[in-house]
Amino acid sequence: MDDFEYMREAMRLADIAAAMGEIPVGAVVADRLTGEIIGRGYNRRECDSRPTAHAEILAIEEAARFRGSWRLTDTTLYVTLEPCPMCSGAIINARITRVVFGAYDPKAGAVCSVEQMFRLPYNHVPRVTAGLLEIPCAAQLSSFFRNIRDKT
Amino acid sequence: MDDFEYMREAMRLADIAAAMGEIPVGAVVADRLTGEIIGRGYNRRECDSRPTAHAEILAIEEAARFRGSWRLTDTTLYVTLEPCPMCSGAIINARITRVVFGAYDPKAGAVCSVEQMFRLPYNHVPRVTAGLLEIPCAAQLSSFFRNIRDKT
Repeated sequence: MDDFEYMREAMRLADIAAAMGEIPVGAVVADRLTGEIIGRGYNRRECDSRPTAHAEILAIEEAARFRGSWRLTDTTLYVTLEPCPMCSGAIINARITRVVFGAYDPKAGAVCSVEQMFRLPYNHVPRVTAGLLEIPCAAQLSSFFRNIRDKT
Repeated sequence: MDDFEYMREAMRLADIAAAMGEIPVGAVVADRLTGEIIGRGYNRRECDSRPTAHAEILAIEEAARFRGSWRLTDTTLYVTLEPCPMCSGAIINARITRVVFGAYDPKAGAVCSVEQMFRLPYNHVPRVTAGLLEIPCAAQLSSFFRNIRDKT
């Protein structure tokens, strides 16, 4: 699988969130040695009443259960939206090697937009690829918010 | 209960972590209207093999389960160590009103030390009281690491 295929899987997960009325964000964690997807997540904040239930956190936690370790070295995280500060911090804590995101988040993005957390002197910051499939990832979000506005 | 009593409860939770061989950090979430502690947590990263299992995350998740909502407005979070980026981001996401921490973390602290996340233009940043019971909180950590060094 190449970067685009992993990101399309993250977009498929975001669609599940949208169908549940959740802001559509999806994420996968891929093992860089085997190519296998070892963690999947989509935003479940409202349905779980859980402030930490972002797509990235759930994908990271599933990958850690798969590995039986909190260390996710040699992995890439793909996510449809630029990670917020919480998720960027979880990426550092889990020692993820590389992050690929789709749409930019001008209000809460901690990788490029509001701050550049991975350029600060934290240990274990990942490499970043920004804006992969940005246009369809952003369209998925804007379509969700347009539908909400049309209903109200 | 006053700030010191909440922080002493967080220190008691950190002691449980230390007894399990985990880096001793403890946290509580208090409801500012009732004074009740609605969430407790201590670091469980190693025993749970979970990169997100910091004291603050577990206390926030317990408080959200108690409230039945991801919105922890009108709460104060007390934690024995300055929050990392992940936990600082979770504090923002949960809309916690105020954060009180004990010891500073020069390597990973996202409130005062490596960055000042709550001074960035994120929505819903909390007020901060830094260094409450700093000396005993720092002593709890240094005693833990000294014991590890003595054993090896």
